[in-house]
Amino acid sequence: MAKQNIGSLYRKFVAQLREIALLASANNIAEYDMEVFMPPAGADHRSDVMALIAGIVHTKRTSAALWRRGEKLLAAVENGLLSETEAIIVRRTMKDLERERKLPKRLVEELVKTTGAAHHVWIEAREKSDFSLFLPSLQRIVELKIEEAEAVGCGGSPYDALLGQYEPGMTAEMVEAVLSPLCDFLKVFVRRLGTGNAPKELKIRLTAKHQARISKDLAKLIGFDFRAGRLDASAHPFTSKMHPGDVRITTRYDESDLLSSIYSTIHETGHALYDHALPSDQFGNCAGEAASYGIHESQSRLWENLIGRSREFSRLLAAFMTGSGEDYELCLPDEDSFYRALNVVKPSLIRTESDEVTYNLHVALRFEIERGLIEGRIAAKDLPEIWNAKIREYLGVEVPSDSVGVLQDVHWSAGLFGYFPSYALGNLYSAQLLEAAVRELPDLWLRANGEQFTWLRLWLYDKVWRHGGLLMPVEIVTQATGAPPSADAFQRYLERKFIEIYQLK
Amino acid sequence: MAKQNIGSLYRKFVAQLREIALLASANNIAEYDMEVFMPPAGADHRSDVMALIAGIVHTKRTSAALWRRGEKLLAAVENGLLSETEAIIVRRTMKDLERERKLPKRLVEELVKTTGAAHHVWIEAREKSDFSLFLPSLQRIVELKIEEAEAVGCGGSPYDALLGQYEPGMTAEMVEAVLSPLCDFLKVFVRRLGTGNAPKELKIRLTAKHQARISKDLAKLIGFDFRAGRLDASAHPFTSKMHPGDVRITTRYDESDLLSSIYSTIHETGHALYDHALPSDQFGNCAGEAASYGIHESQSRLWENLIGRSREFSRLLAAFMTGSGEDYELCLPDEDSFYRALNVVKPSLIRTESDEVTYNLHVALRFEIERGLIEGRIAAKDLPEIWNAKIREYLGVEVPSDSVGVLQDVHWSAGLFGYFPSYALGNLYSAQLLEAAVRELPDLWLRANGEQFTWLRLWLYDKVWRHGGLLMPVEIVTQATGAPPSADAFQRYLERKFIEIYQLK
Repeated sequence: MAKQNIGSLYRKFVAQLREIALLASANNIAEYDMEVFMPPAGADHRSDVMALIAGIVHTKRTSAALWRRGEKLLAAVENGLLSETEAIIVRRTMKDLERERKLPKRLVEELVKTTGAAHHVWIEAREKSDFSLFLPSLQRIVELKIEEAEAVGCGGSPYDALLGQYEPGMTAEMVEAVLSPLCDFLKVFVRRLGTGNAPKELKIRLTAKHQARISKDLAKLIGFDFRAGRLDASAHPFTSKMHPGDVRITTRYDESDLLSSIYSTIHETGHALYDHALPSDQFGNCAGEAASYGIHESQSRLWENLIGRSREFSRLLAAFMTGSGEDYELCLPDEDSFYRALNVVKPSLIRTESDEVTYNLHVALRFEIERGLIEGRIAAKDLPEIWNAKIREYLGVEVPSDSVGVLQDVHWSAGLFGYFPSYALGNLYSAQLLEAAVRELPDLWLRANGEQFTWLRLWLYDKVWRHGGLLMPVEIVTQATGAPPSADAFQRYLERKFIEIYQLK
Repeated sequence: MAKQNIGSLYRKFVAQLREIALLASANNIAEYDMEVFMPPAGADHRSDVMALIAGIVHTKRTSAALWRRGEKLLAAVENGLLSETEAIIVRRTMKDLERERKLPKRLVEELVKTTGAAHHVWIEAREKSDFSLFLPSLQRIVELKIEEAEAVGCGGSPYDALLGQYEPGMTAEMVEAVLSPLCDFLKVFVRRLGTGNAPKELKIRLTAKHQARISKDLAKLIGFDFRAGRLDASAHPFTSKMHPGDVRITTRYDESDLLSSIYSTIHETGHALYDHALPSDQFGNCAGEAASYGIHESQSRLWENLIGRSREFSRLLAAFMTGSGEDYELCLPDEDSFYRALNVVKPSLIRTESDEVTYNLHVALRFEIERGLIEGRIAAKDLPEIWNAKIREYLGVEVPSDSVGVLQDVHWSAGLFGYFPSYALGNLYSAQLLEAAVRELPDLWLRANGEQFTWLRLWLYDKVWRHGGLLMPVEIVTQATGAPPSADAFQRYLERKFIEIYQLK
C-alpha cells in the first residue's frame, strides 16, 4: 500500500479508537456522578446505563472492522511505513485488542455477573466476619480468572496474563525478584524500628468545612488545576479522568482526623497531576493513557509520602494549616514532633491504613496468595489460615477476625487478580524517581515553599507524564533513573528516614 | 401473525426503545454535570462525547430494523391484536420515528452546526446589543427550520410541524384561538391594574448558604423526594430527568433577593414532581414520558404561581422563612403586605422576570413573530422594528436596546421555533387544573400547612402524572377539568386575585 494511503488508514484507526474512548468516558462521567452526587433511587437506572455503554464499547473494540484496519497497519509497521510513535501505538493497541478478542463473550458476561453478585456477598461476609459465606463466590471467581488467564495465554505463569493488564511487560517472576528481598529487609527493619523511639501519634479535630478548604488549597499548591478539575467528597477517595481537561479527585472528611483528608487529597492530587498532563491530542490511544497502574501509583505515592511526609513538607504543611488567619485555630506540637507524628510506623491489620514501611508487606502477602490461587498451588478454602499465618510472620500481628483479615479488600470480589503488585511497584518506582530527581535538581529541598514543586513537576513531566503509554513501565523507570526497577532506592529511603526518626544507631 | 408472536415482538420493540432511552439518558447525566459541576477545560471533550452519543441515538432511532418491527406492530394494531395502551404506544412511537426519519441527515447535521455557531454569535450580539450581527445566523436558521417543517409536512401551516414536537395535537390555529382573546383581555387588564393600588416590591437579603437551606426545605415540603433527586445551583435554573428515580433541579442564589431563589426552586420542584411520578416501568416509550412541554410547564407554574403566590401559601412561606429559629433573622412586612408584595404586576421588558399577568403577552408576541417567520410573512431583518412595536402595543413599554428586546431569548438561536406557545399553554392549563382540583377538594385551602399538598399531589397524580404521554395534552385537560383547554379559568383566576390585590372596584 502507498505511504499516503497508510497515513489515511492510520488516521482512521486512531479516530476510531478515539471515538470508542469518548463513549467509554461517558461512563466515567456517569460513574463519578454515581459515586459523588447520585441520589440512592438512581442506582438501578445508572447500572443499566453503564452496562449498556460498556457493552457497546466492548463490541466496538472487538469489531472485525477495527481489527482488519489494525492488521493492515501492523503489516505497514513491518515494512517501515509508519513513524516510530505510530508503530508503537499500532502494536500496543493490537496487543490489547487481541487480548480482548481472545476472551469469549460468555466468559466476559459471566465475570460481570459473578463479580456483581459477589460484591454483595463479600459485603455481607465481611460484616459478619464469616469467610465461609464468601468462599463459594471466591472459588467461582478464581475459576473464571484462571479461564481468562488461559484464554489470554501469554506463556509463563497464568498469573502473568492477569498482571500484564495492569503492569505491561511485568511477570510474576519479575515482581517476585523485586518484592522477595524487599520483604526480607522489611521484616527485619520493622522489628528494628520496634526498638527505637516511636513518635507520638497525632489526631487533629477540625470541621469538614475547614478541612475542605485546606484540601482545596493544598491541591492547588501542589499543582492541581481547578480549571481542569474538581475536588469533591466521597466514601472512598479516588481519582477519575474523563479527559486531561477534566480530572476529578475526591477525599473523605473525618472531623476527628484532619490529617486523613489531607493525605488522601495529596495522594489523589498526585494521580491527577499525571492525568492532567497526558497528551490530550492522543486521547483514545495508548500514547494518551498512563503507562501502567504502577506508574500511576508511583505518582500518587511520591506526593503523598516522599514529598508529603518529608521534614521539609511538614514545615510547609504546619504553616499552611495554622497560618491561614481564618476562622479556626489549630494547636500543633513543635516542628520536630509534628514531622515525626506524620511518620509513625506501626504493624497493623489493615493495608489501607498502614504506614510507608509496613505497606509493602501487606501487598506482598496478597501477591503471594493470589499468585498461588491462580497457579493452582493454593486452595481458596485455606485462605484464612494462610492469611493469618502470613500476617503473623510478616508483621507480628494476630488477626482477630476475617473481617479485618482476608475479607478486608474489595479486589478479589471484583475479580481484580493481578492488581496488587502495582501498589508495591508504585512505591518502589516513586523512591527511585525521586532519588533521581533530587540528583538532577539538588536544590529541590532548599526552600520549603510551593515553588519547588514547579521544578519537580517539570521533571516528572519530562521523564514520565509526557510519554503516556508510549514507554513501558520498565523503560520509564530505567530512562528516568538510569537503572531498572528495583527496591534499592526505596530501601535506602526508608533507612535514611526512619533510622533518624526512630533515633536508632 | 399469532397473538403470542405479536406479544414477543411488542416486548422486543419497547425493549429496543428502552435501550435507546438509556443511552440518551447518559447524555442527560453528562449535560447535568456540564451545567452544574464541570470545570471549564472539560467543555470541548464534553461536547464531543455528547455529539457522539446523540449521533448513536439518532442512528438507532432511525434504524430500519426498529422501523420494520414497528410497521408489523402497526398492522397488528389494525387487527386488534394489541391492548389499548400498547396500541397507543406503537402509534405514538411510529409517528415520532416517522418524523425523525423524514429529516435528511444533512439537514439534522447542518442544524446542529448552524445553531452551535449561532449560539456564540447571539451572545456577542446581545452583549453589543447589535441585532445586525445576529441577523445572518437567524436568517439561515429560519431557512433550515422551514426546510424541516416542509420535510415533516403535516398539512396546515408549516409552523404546526414545529409546534407539534412540543405540544402534540396542537396547531397554530388552535393556539391563536386561545391566545388571541386572552391578549385582548390582558392588554385591557394591565391598564386597569395601572389605576389601582400597586403593592410595594420586596427584596430580602440573605446569604446563599441560608437561601440554599430554605430552598431545600421548601422543595421537601412541596414533595420533592431527595432520595430520588438533588437540588444544586446553576447559572440558569432547570430540571433534568435521568429517570423517575433520579430527577435533578437547580436554582440560583442572588444574595440580594431571597425570593428569586425561592420561586425558582418552587417552579423546578413543580417540574420534578411530574418527572418523579412518571411510570418508570414504561421508561423509554411515550407512556413513561411527559405528555407535552405545555403540560410540564403547567405543573411548574401551578406550584410557582397558583399555589406559591396565593395568600394561603404566603402565610406558610413567611412562617417558614422566619420561623426556623436558625442563625439568621429576617424582617418581613405584615401578612397582607407580604402577600401583595409577591404579586406585583409591572409591564417590563424581560419575559423571564415578568409577572403572572404580563407573562403571556410576552409569549404571545413571540408566537406571532415566529409563526410569521416560518410562514414567510415576516422577514428576519424587520424583527427589531416589529418587536419594539408589539412591546409598545401590548405592554406600553419602550424598548431601549435590542439586548433587552428581540435578542433577549436564547430560543431562536438554538432553533427552538414552536416552543414558546408551551409556556403560555402551561399557564392556561395550570389555572384550569387547579380550578378543577379545588372543586373536587374543597378544603384544599383550609389549612395553611404542608399536609394539603399531599391531597393536591394525589389529585395531580391521578389526573396528569400517571398517564405519562398516553393521553394528548388536550385529552388530559379535558378529562381532568371537564372542558377543553381555554383561557377562561386563567382569566377568572387573574381577575379574582388581582382585583382584590389592586383594590379595584
